[in-house]
Amino acid sequence: MNARDLILVSVDDHLVEPPHLFEGRLSARFADAAPKVERKPDGSDVWVFNGSVIPNIGLNAVAGRPKEEYGVEPTAFDEMRPGCYDVHERIKDMNAGGVLGSMCFPSFPGFSGRLFAACEDKELALAVLQAYNDWHIDEWCGAYPGRFIPMALPVLWDPEEAAAEVRRVAAKGCHSITFTENPAALGYPSFHAEHWDPLWKAVCDEGVVVSIHLGSSGQLAVTAPDAPVDVMITLQPMNICQAAADLLWSRVLKEFPDIRFALSEGGTGWIPYFLDRLDRTYDMHHLWTGQDFKDRLPSDVFREHFLTCFIADPVGMELRHLIGLDNIAWECDYPHSDSSWPEAPEELARVAAGVPVDELARITYENACRWYSFDPFSQRARERCTVGALRAEAKGHDVAIHSFDHGRFERTHKGVDVGDLAKRATA
Amino acid sequence: MNARDLILVSVDDHLVEPPHLFEGRLSARFADAAPKVERKPDGSDVWVFNGSVIPNIGLNAVAGRPKEEYGVEPTAFDEMRPGCYDVHERIKDMNAGGVLGSMCFPSFPGFSGRLFAACEDKELALAVLQAYNDWHIDEWCGAYPGRFIPMALPVLWDPEEAAAEVRRVAAKGCHSITFTENPAALGYPSFHAEHWDPLWKAVCDEGVVVSIHLGSSGQLAVTAPDAPVDVMITLQPMNICQAAADLLWSRVLKEFPDIRFALSEGGTGWIPYFLDRLDRTYDMHHLWTGQDFKDRLPSDVFREHFLTCFIADPVGMELRHLIGLDNIAWECDYPHSDSSWPEAPEELARVAAGVPVDELARITYENACRWYSFDPFSQRARERCTVGALRAEAKGHDVAIHSFDHGRFERTHKGVDVGDLAKRATA
Repeated sequence: MNARDLILVSVDDHLVEPPHLFEGRLSARFADAAPKVERKPDGSDVWVFNGSVIPNIGLNAVAGRPKEEYGVEPTAFDEMRPGCYDVHERIKDMNAGGVLGSMCFPSFPGFSGRLFAACEDKELALAVLQAYNDWHIDEWCGAYPGRFIPMALPVLWDPEEAAAEVRRVAAKGCHSITFTENPAALGYPSFHAEHWDPLWKAVCDEGVVVSIHLGSSGQLAVTAPDAPVDVMITLQPMNICQAAADLLWSRVLKEFPDIRFALSEGGTGWIPYFLDRLDRTYDMHHLWTGQDFKDRLPSDVFREHFLTCFIADPVGMELRHLIGLDNIAWECDYPHSDSSWPEAPEELARVAAGVPVDELARITYENACRWYSFDPFSQRARERCTVGALRAEAKGHDVAIHSFDHGRFERTHKGVDVGDLAKRATA
Repeated sequence: MNARDLILVSVDDHLVEPPHLFEGRLSARFADAAPKVERKPDGSDVWVFNGSVIPNIGLNAVAGRPKEEYGVEPTAFDEMRPGCYDVHERIKDMNAGGVLGSMCFPSFPGFSGRLFAACEDKELALAVLQAYNDWHIDEWCGAYPGRFIPMALPVLWDPEEAAAEVRRVAAKGCHSITFTENPAALGYPSFHAEHWDPLWKAVCDEGVVVSIHLGSSGQLAVTAPDAPVDVMITLQPMNICQAAADLLWSRVLKEFPDIRFALSEGGTGWIPYFLDRLDRTYDMHHLWTGQDFKDRLPSDVFREHFLTCFIADPVGMELRHLIGLDNIAWECDYPHSDSSWPEAPEELARVAAGVPVDELARITYENACRWYSFDPFSQRARERCTVGALRAEAKGHDVAIHSFDHGRFERTHKGVDVGDLAKRATA
């Protein structure tokens, strides 16, 4: 399939929160205590809240930078591509990258909002979290209807409040909450406790997907303190299989048959092996462990409840039928370092060479739309939704690779511009 | 391929140490302090050493038991199948299971001998460890030349002593040491420290493979204290990818180009995804992390240094060319609960249906023989090495599935006998 003909909805991107996020969204009582951006003496910008200082890590906002400049040092807003934090610039970057729809995970609150959960003043925490969710849904997503899958932060500290917030945001059209891949690692009751039942009931009632992003407990696999960072980067996606196993064997899926989880940024190539392993474990051990899925296998149960996703995963694509064609979605991961923006469509077309058009459509947008109740075509004619059509709208938008020098854009590497991409896509 | 025509060398089995192991192997000074078997009031047998009490966990000796009786409770020698601890019975079970050769990991000392390493009297620890290695090589493996790949325990507490022990056992024909998959998790310097260099030099000099068994640091993935045991069982093999990543990016492979590791009981189906992930991590990040493999990719480096293995892994078999045909070996895992003994050959033949004979030969025995410098054919004519030939020798040996009642064998389930197996294999 030609890259220009793809329709792309990404189920895992990221936004960097702009400094004005909370402005006008909190009552006078809470406004002073709201999270604020401060500039540090080293020139980096940080979010400050409740005594915590959260830097923007360079690797999390590298879209458009040369790879030599990737790194984990703190960064400033004027060293980032504006598409990281400015929704109008983001839409231009999405157009240039050929991406129709995008679900954006949070940055400074943590993937599951644990910064807010750590605040002892729970009224303040809830006010801030709701202000965040309203900003995300109304301002970020609302600025361009049909272009963003809205996603809400969870009230981690109170399952009843969490349920209420799910119902509140669902009424505003939000069908995704982000959640931790292991609440026990954050000091909360685990997935095996009844504690979370009010939340699970709410997401089932409201048709909301629980999107668990790798690393959302804050615990990535670190083998040793002196291990090279490459080890941690390599292991990131594979570690989400721990969450998948934890949930698969838990009472959650048995008690809440309508519940759905997304393994965000988890990759797909390991899933077929994982499903075999689940079924073998069941076969060899259920007679003494007491697991009982009635007439189904664990792999069947997985496919009923889990959405997986990938950036560019040749093994997962080859084995897509073993994963389940309804269980795979594509992600762009803009503006993180794993992303191939703005050439992600070309990368995907290479990886998916030979995949029939109808199967690829399920993977690149149909599954995402169905799982997240997202309907971009109600806002935009389908023929205007393709990579080629979106790039035509982006004409003139600069997507060259730049070196950033304290806010001054300086071209140091061979640039890629939309014209180039359009030429390649039609070649 | 017909199961009866397979030649099977298993690179991962287990032995339960018999009570007499240390008898006559230690000087008077150490004999009293040597590990001993004691019977507990609950009827279970335990090993006692240096203040530690080590039960035999039921799941580790379930060969020949019905699955309803699997479990993690402690057990006694007379509740185990004698093939667990008696080498003469083991050979009969290997014959009945069609297994020509076997590498047996230790039980009570821990996979990497950490029970001995914990002993503060390092002279005693070394004496006991050497006695163990001599017993394993001379008595267990020596009883049936050409049937066992000898494997030694490492001197975890002293790299120079570890190197000396590698050279000592290599001189006796032992080309495998067991080691932990993460020394840092045991409180030792990590794979990234120069600390272990004397050991790495010795294994390279002597052509010894470092066999790292999953769980050998004692740290299996436990998601939460109240997680069902099925979660831990499911995740066991996948967690060894942490060790593979740790080693792959470490200085070890760069400084010791001849070093070889086996990922014991690690499975194979996740490897193709893992290799893609390694290469993508390298592509996206090496310019800032400083990794440099010259003209090779991380996946090339992996194939030069790592042997993988599987019990029954349809995905790994389908993707064998992506793993590397020289990098895959088969394992039986007798007498653990993941094993399909005595029907493992039939299981393997099903999983490998359609694999060309020459490729299957590399996987079922040629790779194991080459990696571990093991030559069973010097002891036994090749035509006597097949599943069918070995089973003919086992004629009359009882391999029925039994229920154990305090040492009294009682048949409760449909039995499988060698006659049945032979019939099925020739069907």
